[in-house]
Order: sequence, then C-alpha cells, then structure tokens
Amino acid sequence: MATDVDAMFARLRAGERRALAQAISLVERGGDAARALLARTYLHTGHAHVVGVTGPPGAGKSTLVAALAQEWRRQGKTVGIIAVDPSSPFTGGAVLGDRIRMQSLGGDSGVFIRSMASRGRLGGLGRATADAANLLDAAGFDIVLIETVGAGQGEVDIARAAQSTIVVEVPGMGDDVQSIKAGMLEIADLFVVNKADREGADQVLRQLRAMLHLAMPEADAWEVPVLKAVAMQQQGSAEIVAGLAQHRDYLTRSGQGRQRARAAAERELSAAVQELILERVQGPQWQHLVDAVSARQSDPYSAAIALLQNLGERDTLQV
Amino acid sequence: MATDVDAMFARLRAGERRALAQAISLVERGGDAARALLARTYLHTGHAHVVGVTGPPGAGKSTLVAALAQEWRRQGKTVGIIAVDPSSPFTGGAVLGDRIRMQSLGGDSGVFIRSMASRGRLGGLGRATADAANLLDAAGFDIVLIETVGAGQGEVDIARAAQSTIVVEVPGMGDDVQSIKAGMLEIADLFVVNKADREGADQVLRQLRAMLHLAMPEADAWEVPVLKAVAMQQQGSAEIVAGLAQHRDYLTRSGQGRQRARAAAERELSAAVQELILERVQGPQWQHLVDAVSARQSDPYSAAIALLQNLGERDTLQV
Repeated sequence: MATDVDAMFARLRAGERRALAQAISLVERGGDAARALLARTYLHTGHAHVVGVTGPPGAGKSTLVAALAQEWRRQGKTVGIIAVDPSSPFTGGAVLGDRIRMQSLGGDSGVFIRSMASRGRLGGLGRATADAANLLDAAGFDIVLIETVGAGQGEVDIARAAQSTIVVEVPGMGDDVQSIKAGMLEIADLFVVNKADREGADQVLRQLRAMLHLAMPEADAWEVPVLKAVAMQQQGSAEIVAGLAQHRDYLTRSGQGRQRARAAAERELSAAVQELILERVQGPQWQHLVDAVSARQSDPYSAAIALLQNLGERDTLQV
Repeated sequence: MATDVDAMFARLRAGERRALAQAISLVERGGDAARALLARTYLHTGHAHVVGVTGPPGAGKSTLVAALAQEWRRQGKTVGIIAVDPSSPFTGGAVLGDRIRMQSLGGDSGVFIRSMASRGRLGGLGRATADAANLLDAAGFDIVLIETVGAGQGEVDIARAAQSTIVVEVPGMGDDVQSIKAGMLEIADLFVVNKADREGADQVLRQLRAMLHLAMPEADAWEVPVLKAVAMQQQGSAEIVAGLAQHRDYLTRSGQGRQRARAAAERELSAAVQELILERVQGPQWQHLVDAVSARQSDPYSAAIALLQNLGERDTLQV
C-alpha cells in the first residue's frame, strides 16, 4: 500500500488530473491509505487561496463560481473547484445540477471541478471537503473554490476551511432571509448581491450595508465589501476577484491569517485523533456495547469508558 | 459535583422546569458534570416520540410547530420543543424570531420551549440537540419536537436524532427548491405543504407526490404522506398529528424503529468516545503539536499518533 500511496503522491504533485480525481475519491472513502496520502500531502499545503462561496438556494452560486473561475483564468491563475451538493447520506446520491452548470469550464486544463456528496465518512462532508481542498492545494492550484448550498452548520464548517468566504445574496427572497443574513454576517468576508439587474437589488445592498454597519467592527478590522454582480453576464467578477485578493493581503498584514491557520490546524488534529481512536475501539466489544446502549442497559459514556480502558497494543498505531 | 448532578437529576425526573432549563444549559456547555447527568438520564430515555421539523427558510416551520403543539395539547399530551436557530459559532449569537413566534404557547405548563444555538461544543449543534432531546425525553415529555432552519447537513443530523421527520414545503419558492427537495426526499417521513391557501399549493403537492412515486419504495415500505396545512389558521394539524402517530406505529411494527434506535445508539457511543479522548489528549503536548501542524512541520495524523501513544493513566477515566 505504501508504494501505491507514494506513486499517487508523486503523480498528484506532478499535476496529473487523474491522480487528483483518484486521490479525492480515496479520501472520501477514508481508511489507512487515505490517511497516509493526506499525511504526505499536508506538508505541501498552505499555498493556495482557499475561497468559500455560500448563500441561499437560488442565489446563482454555481454561475458565480464559473464566472470567478474565468476571471482568475484570465489572470493566469489555476483554479480547483469543489462543489458540495445537497446530498443524501442515506443513499449516497447527489444532485448533478451544479456540475452541468459548470460545463463552460470543462475544456480548460487550468480548472479542476469536483462535485462532492456526504457519504457518511467520519466527520461528514466538512472533513471530506477540507481534505479535498488540501489535495488541490498540494497539487499546486493557485485558487481553491468551495461552493456550498444552503444555510446552516454546513456553511460554517466550510467557512472554517476557507481563508475567505463569499456570501451570495439575491433580490426578492422571502422575509425569513433576514434571519439567515444575520447568521451569515459572521462568516462573510465579502458579500455579493448577484442577479443585480433585478428589481430590489439596491434595497438588498442597502440592507446588507446597514447590517454590517450595525455590527460595528473594531477600527482595524476588515471592512466587509458589498459588491454587485450579474454572474450570468460575467458582470462584477473582476471586482470580486480584486476584493478577495485584498482580503488575503489583509489576513497576512493583520496576523489574522496566522490565527485562522492555527485554528484550522487544531481542527485537523482533533479530527485525526477522533478518526484514529474510533477505528481502534470498533473491535469485537463494539457491537455488544452498542446493543447495551440501544437497550438502555448502559449509557454512552460508561460504554465509551469501557472501550477506552480495554484499548491495548497502542504501539501498533501508525500512519 | 456528584451531589449537584444527583439533585438536578431528581428534579429533572420530577418534572421541574427550572431544573430542565439548567440541565440543557449544562449539556450545551459540556464537561464532566454534563456527562454525568447525561449518563444517568440516558437510561430513562426511549419513551418520547421525537419528531423533527425541517424545510427551507420562509416555510412557516415555527408557526406549524406551534399549531402541532396545540393539537397535541388538546389530546392531553405534553410537548417539549427545541428550536434550532440559525446561529453563529463565532459569536455565540442567535436569532430570537422563533422564540417570539411561539409566545402563544408560553403560559402552558405542558409545553416546554427551548431555543438552541451552536456554541462550539464538541460535535456541534447536532450533539447538543440530541442531548437536549434525551433530557426532555427523560423529563417525561410525550412528544419532543425539534425544529431546524435551512437545508444541509444540519437537517440530516437532526433527522437522525428524530424518529419521525416532517419536511415542510410552501408554494412559490425559487427554481432551486427542486434540488433541495430531492435531498429532502430521503429524510422525509411526512411532507407538509404549508401556506396551502396560496396559489400554487396543488402544484407543489403534485410535484412532491410525483417525486415520491419516482423514488418507488419497496412493497412494505412506509408510504410518505403529503399533507396540506395552513398553520397560521390552525388548519391541517390534526391530520399531521395523526400521520405521525401512524408513522410511529409503522416503526414499531416493521422493526425499523429498532434499527433506527440502534443506529442512534452507535452514534451516541461514537460521540462519547470522541469527546472523552479529545479531552484526554489536550494536555501540555497539545499546543506544541498544533503549532507544528500549523507550520506544516508535522501532519495531523502523525501528530495524532504521537498524542495517543503518550496517553497514560487510562484508569483515571470515569463518568
């Protein structure tokens, strides 16, 4: 197995697209080989600008992602895109719409697009996405774009994986959008009002600016820009790309980039500990204790302690 | 601390509302006392019907939750409600809208309402919600309702904690709703088309039924009902409550209830193992290794193995 991983790592670093696709599939599945690959690639990460794109359904995120990718390509930068589909962990299914919408980028070797679904890997979609972003980073992409649908914990996880997060809004959403926006205020490094040729765009723009003003950041904080776009007609992309570059400069200048990187490292380490320990305890005793907990003969914590106390042969742990 | 937990447990089991509120706050924070309380209460769970309510923003979920609670109260059943707000783990803030909308139930001692936000507890909102549901169950509530906003991994986590999941739809949402619906098909035990007095309600009804028909379940599977409601005018609640009771009967009859309970027990056990081990490894070596991972001098898996190999004194583990 070590040889396979060595070979895949070498091909990945050489920029082979097929190796990259295989590597992402491998980390989606998890296991020893996935960990070995991630351990090796991790030391070569930290170069890409990882950008998250989120917002409510219908905001045109995929179209915006495609427009931004084209703008970066014009500037000679390579772009890896991870599209996180609304998906079912119950069936492993995923909606293909986003992939289809990104066909315009299909023929460009400087763009790599991957659609991901939650397939029940330990730690869920957040982990698989962060791992895939690391692989794209190690494979040399200048920009890694992560697109996610919805409004909830998922966005927050993805915002944590990204250095810069774009929140996309559109005119004419329902009244509950207001409360969603409040939640999004905290994760947005940049707001984009997409479909800005529609009625009500200026109102959304004003609302967002008012909300940001109310949030009143400290004097030296990043001032979140609110930009307009009509992604379908390629309008606004250059300004957004410029805004993202400024945000990255700010992260470096202010020391916030280092803080975010450290928090990310802490999450990676926690996840690795959890993944390794869970694989270790799922031995013969596991099913028995699950039954006992299910029957309310034991509680989860007492059962967990029994498992951890019976853990022996710890020296066999290896990557 | 043991005495405090004993006292809180006794008051919780006696149905003291203040003790319940304190207990939920305790498990939101986590730690030894929270674990001790959860371990004790867990043995007294498994009686309540845990119902999840999810759907896109603007679907009127809170109003529906209030209407359902009133229907159950008419039937003499007690109802515990957990409203999961779109929230920010970065600031600990939460939007209060849902709580305000539920004021109509405020004076009823047979109803307990709790708004929860993600406050960065290990395992996130999904864990805190499952724990709170267990506390309400052990406190003797007949029904535990979990309401969540959005469309994403959060809903899936909550669907897993619930025995029956209602997905709420409304007429007149954007075109991307179609893809969201596809994701929701897998978690819905019951669809409700709310605001059914609006134009387009019958179309949504037909769409949902067509999608369910396409999914083609096996012969003995649960046939997901698609029901109409105008929650604001208390219309449709009785049918939904009856549909949920039928679903619970189905779960028992088919053995699926036991399967879901076992899967829930396995998740609880995994979470307990992860929580306990993570607290153990966060000793003096932790910060040093986080720095090394952050600087790409080490990778998360190698660092995790170093931590796990240095774990001694395992016999001190206790609940």
